[in-house]
Amino acid sequence: MPPSGPNTNDLEALLAPRSVAVIGASDDPTRIGGRPLSYLLRAGFPGEVWPVNPNRETVQGLRAYPSIGDVPGTPDACIVAVAAPLVPEALEACADRGARAAVILSAGFAEAGEEGKLAQRRVSEIARERVIRVLGPNTLGLFNAHTRWMGTFASTVLYGTPEPGPIGVASQSGAVGSELFALLRRRGLNTGIWITTGNEADVDLADAIAYLADHADTRIIVVYAEGVRNGPALRAALVRASKAGKPVLFLKSGRSAVGAAAVTSHTAALAGSDRIYGALLAQHGAVRVSTAEELVDAAHATALCPLPAGRRLLILTISGGAGVQMADAAADLQLSVDPPSDETQERLKALVPFAGVRNPVDTTAQVFNDIGLIGKYLRILLENGAYDAVALFLTSVAASEKVAGPLVAELDEARARFPGVPLVVSLAGPAELTRPYTEAGYPLFEEPTRAVRAVSLLGRLSEARRREVVVPDVVIPKGALRVPDTSLGEHAAMQLLESWGVPCVQRRLAATEDEAIGAAADLGGRVALKIASPDILHKTDVGGVLLGVEGVDAVRVGFRTLTTRAASLRPDAEVEGVLVAAMVDGGEDAVVGIVSDPTFGPAVMVGLGGVLVEVLDDVAFRLAPFDTGEARRMIAELKGARLFQAFRGRPELDADALAVLLSTVSRFAAAEGEALSSVDLNPVRVLPKGQGVVVLDAVVVPRVPPG
Amino acid sequence: MPPSGPNTNDLEALLAPRSVAVIGASDDPTRIGGRPLSYLLRAGFPGEVWPVNPNRETVQGLRAYPSIGDVPGTPDACIVAVAAPLVPEALEACADRGARAAVILSAGFAEAGEEGKLAQRRVSEIARERVIRVLGPNTLGLFNAHTRWMGTFASTVLYGTPEPGPIGVASQSGAVGSELFALLRRRGLNTGIWITTGNEADVDLADAIAYLADHADTRIIVVYAEGVRNGPALRAALVRASKAGKPVLFLKSGRSAVGAAAVTSHTAALAGSDRIYGALLAQHGAVRVSTAEELVDAAHATALCPLPAGRRLLILTISGGAGVQMADAAADLQLSVDPPSDETQERLKALVPFAGVRNPVDTTAQVFNDIGLIGKYLRILLENGAYDAVALFLTSVAASEKVAGPLVAELDEARARFPGVPLVVSLAGPAELTRPYTEAGYPLFEEPTRAVRAVSLLGRLSEARRREVVVPDVVIPKGALRVPDTSLGEHAAMQLLESWGVPCVQRRLAATEDEAIGAAADLGGRVALKIASPDILHKTDVGGVLLGVEGVDAVRVGFRTLTTRAASLRPDAEVEGVLVAAMVDGGEDAVVGIVSDPTFGPAVMVGLGGVLVEVLDDVAFRLAPFDTGEARRMIAELKGARLFQAFRGRPELDADALAVLLSTVSRFAAAEGEALSSVDLNPVRVLPKGQGVVVLDAVVVPRVPPG
Repeated sequence: MPPSGPNTNDLEALLAPRSVAVIGASDDPTRIGGRPLSYLLRAGFPGEVWPVNPNRETVQGLRAYPSIGDVPGTPDACIVAVAAPLVPEALEACADRGARAAVILSAGFAEAGEEGKLAQRRVSEIARERVIRVLGPNTLGLFNAHTRWMGTFASTVLYGTPEPGPIGVASQSGAVGSELFALLRRRGLNTGIWITTGNEADVDLADAIAYLADHADTRIIVVYAEGVRNGPALRAALVRASKAGKPVLFLKSGRSAVGAAAVTSHTAALAGSDRIYGALLAQHGAVRVSTAEELVDAAHATALCPLPAGRRLLILTISGGAGVQMADAAADLQLSVDPPSDETQERLKALVPFAGVRNPVDTTAQVFNDIGLIGKYLRILLENGAYDAVALFLTSVAASEKVAGPLVAELDEARARFPGVPLVVSLAGPAELTRPYTEAGYPLFEEPTRAVRAVSLLGRLSEARRREVVVPDVVIPKGALRVPDTSLGEHAAMQLLESWGVPCVQRRLAATEDEAIGAAADLGGRVALKIASPDILHKTDVGGVLLGVEGVDAVRVGFRTLTTRAASLRPDAEVEGVLVAAMVDGGEDAVVGIVSDPTFGPAVMVGLGGVLVEVLDDVAFRLAPFDTGEARRMIAELKGARLFQAFRGRPELDADALAVLLSTVSRFAAAEGEALSSVDLNPVRVLPKGQGVVVLDAVVVPRVPPG
Repeated sequence: MPPSGPNTNDLEALLAPRSVAVIGASDDPTRIGGRPLSYLLRAGFPGEVWPVNPNRETVQGLRAYPSIGDVPGTPDACIVAVAAPLVPEALEACADRGARAAVILSAGFAEAGEEGKLAQRRVSEIARERVIRVLGPNTLGLFNAHTRWMGTFASTVLYGTPEPGPIGVASQSGAVGSELFALLRRRGLNTGIWITTGNEADVDLADAIAYLADHADTRIIVVYAEGVRNGPALRAALVRASKAGKPVLFLKSGRSAVGAAAVTSHTAALAGSDRIYGALLAQHGAVRVSTAEELVDAAHATALCPLPAGRRLLILTISGGAGVQMADAAADLQLSVDPPSDETQERLKALVPFAGVRNPVDTTAQVFNDIGLIGKYLRILLENGAYDAVALFLTSVAASEKVAGPLVAELDEARARFPGVPLVVSLAGPAELTRPYTEAGYPLFEEPTRAVRAVSLLGRLSEARRREVVVPDVVIPKGALRVPDTSLGEHAAMQLLESWGVPCVQRRLAATEDEAIGAAADLGGRVALKIASPDILHKTDVGGVLLGVEGVDAVRVGFRTLTTRAASLRPDAEVEGVLVAAMVDGGEDAVVGIVSDPTFGPAVMVGLGGVLVEVLDDVAFRLAPFDTGEARRMIAELKGARLFQAFRGRPELDADALAVLLSTVSRFAAAEGEALSSVDLNPVRVLPKGQGVVVLDAVVVPRVPPG
């Protein structure tokens, strides 16, 4: 694979072949080697199909050939369904015959022990050496309904030939890919392209996403991932989808410890840190969903609706109770449910005196006596641009024949008048009765809170699309120090950070008691004393920190205490003296760190308030580098972000300064990623607004070069 | 209503009448006065039905009577569907004719302004004075499918006559009640009794729940509430349901601020504090759900499965990917997903060498070659009693005709062998293909994580049922002080609490500087000084607290500072002197309070760690009184409960002592509820395990008697 990221052009033979050979073709359409053939025939694949089977004259009514060498033309792609040990040889034969792509359905590779791993390695080598793109092995395969190409034995395809449609699915799991395809189809959504990557000996998830990003007829990209090996390629593929303006709905499993363990036990993929995936998706315009259901609801709404301009939801019901539940759900999902203006409320009251005119707006069942009311309500409520989306709750009366037609006509008029406002409907009833709404193209949810969740998902997709994916250039500041390849004391670590513009606490390194006394006086009298040694990273473990030390005697005793403790507990450590640092009052403590992810490289972490980090694990991550806008979104993700607001006499804190610090640290991380093992700034004091932030303690651990 | 709580016997005429008159009966079956009649006729109601309509000879084929006085027998119940202003008179006429119950479908009462409120008050009076139980007004009515009694005009009933079934629905909203009925029916669940209480002029939600608790053929009680007025009656009804061993699934809307506002705007009910409802339900064996969907999923699983004995989930899949998602969902829902024993794993490996044998257990698609494998897996995994429930993920292959029959037979055998273990299935496919599973009685979910959520809901129902609802007796301790009806200083507040056995900080009230100096010496030298005045509740507002004061001079200056500040900032306040309190080191701070809910009476609140309470609003409530077991569950609800565990060198804290304190405070609250306005113990220091808790500051505000 070229380092510049996946090149989808060379997937054209795999995804849209004009001719296909099936190696190991079976006459029995229920077998792995028979199913793709039967699917191709049923779909009416317009190109040539050449079954290869040395034991039969014909296979499923087509002339069969004894070997791939005997087929009468050059196949663009081959389907390989022979036993694992025979696969490398078969793949070479395909390459010899000029095929540029292969789908290896056979299992028994990396997932099945050492021998399989060797065979898979051989498949990868052949793919690379012979320039043949390989999907699998151990994959359910792929299909492209737009070209009627069915390179799969997925049983879900049994229940109906896939039809061209706006959805493209890229899945690392065949079963989950099948489930998504089936659930989407049950919601009336056609998956035009479906790729399951299996063991990824060659083509991986990033390749599949990139292909879908480029594919003109694919509008919505649906991804299921368990863990990728090539982080930069996935990043590049997501950027590509974002630039193409295509919503990416991303289901990543392995969030929990048990889930992550299950991933590693059932695939050969590295699970990576789930939180880093969260960061990756947030940064690259993809929307992460938690369940297949959420994914399908989001795809359903996205396929039918415009994306809303903001988070202001109008809840319109023809009965009060459901509106309350919907308002609760909206609050959970951070949608705002603001009341209409007083004037608008007056106008509504003039229509139905006892109706609810705040938001949720409740027309009452009066609507069934005068269906035109719905249109009037929508017009009055939307014409001032006060709402970005509408969630409509209709009782089952609305599904009756008498009501459905006129009511849909009212909705159609509102939709035409306000084309930018998504209109999502909740209505419980048998499919035959709710059909007028689905046929008119309204996203339909049985349960009212799911309609609200769909609006929230549309909002997240909209925000992801509006946000430009910015990866800032990393300019190394003039005079920036480099990370050494030896361990660093706190003072040196802070000097390094300061050379990048990170504000660190005022301090002096004191080699003697008298130097410490002088430093304390210069720093305002009340100081922190910390043992200074590049060999002691965890100073508190040796009792190496004294806070609030004041007065000549106290500083002298403190100096002596720290050096004595260090000498007795860590006689091996080289002690430079004592770091004398100013005490900083006010504000709240944050924690900032750099971690190095094996798949995605350096990432920056932030957390707030010791208890929140320690007890609730309330931290946010982003891949380095990122700008201050991204840093602000990162901070806003924290549950504890409210600590920044003014509260009970406590002043507002300088979140902007923290965002600048995070972005600076991220650029440092990006520039020095290879040289860094980890960085831990704990605490970073966030001062009242306008007073900035200051790093009070810093541990920088260089990566020890191998050997 | 008798103060002893609802008496369901007198609802028999309302819920199971043998004869019915319809006041305002209409010949048009689409009108409010026509629909119940048409439903009764279609359902084949076996009793007498007498339409009352002065303008017609017959109504819907039945002989009509000009007035209720003319009907040829005594109706048990009347349906009233005349215009609001005519309702009181009609109701009196019904009572005159001997009816013992009425369903008032008419709207235009408390929901519709002042005049309506007066009319509704009149309805309440008639109900009480004439001993006629009234449902409504402004209700969609009720039905009892067991007796084919249809006192409703709900349009959902149009789509099929309700069938007898295990579900009983009690709803304050007609529309939400209808929605629940429809959603339950779509999941194959029959609602045998359905009651929507409307404006609750007489019969309220508690009456309806109590009736369902007593009703022999109702197994599962489903409740939708927006806000009740009679808290003790609801408590009593829930206790009744709990004693009857019936699961109560409770959907309460108005969780959010907007939702709560919407409740008050669309009904006349008091919203009350939503958190108090959470406490009420947790204490009384009901399971609160967040959405109708969750409710219906829980009812579906409960109707078909035994309740699990614990939270140990086995995830069994025939394909790895879904298992990972299910494990993630299980972690979110606090279900444990433990691996089988090594020996069990070995036995599984012997069956399918490359299958996943940790939990999630993945049989691989090998099952489709040998369907008996499923039964073997289940037997091996369940026979040691290591799991309380099974969530099974089947791909759509399992819905094929060839596979479904034999696979269901395997499940049936496992179910028969392990009858106490619920077996929940996830399988996506069209209804006609999944039918073998539903017909065999397995709860079925399209989406695998919903199957896991259903297991979690079964677990919560099981825990609610196992837990005995204990309301401890309140024994006033010997020598307990009473709450005065004048304001209390901190010292007196602590004396009051101490008389109940609540541990408060060691302290002395000092009227002079010298007394303060003596007190400080007695209390260990380092003390807190606090201005002592019954008139100054918020001491920090006047700079009235000094912490860590040490030494004669410092105490003297401190005393002077506090009294001077108080004199200048609160010249009106009566100052008793300065409270000198011991400083308590170590541990973490909790906050404990008593609040008085207008609907449910006194409740106790607990929160942990200043930041968690202030920023995350991480608090838990319980209605007073409660025992220490309930207090422990209350503490466990806190997100910050992890603070009690040993962590990074911090010792485990004395959560047990906090539980004892909470229970003590709750008994104090129950005994003195009428006399208390609020109590705020902030902070309560929770010390390392074995060292107890100590109240460091206390504010007790007596309820000022009116006048």
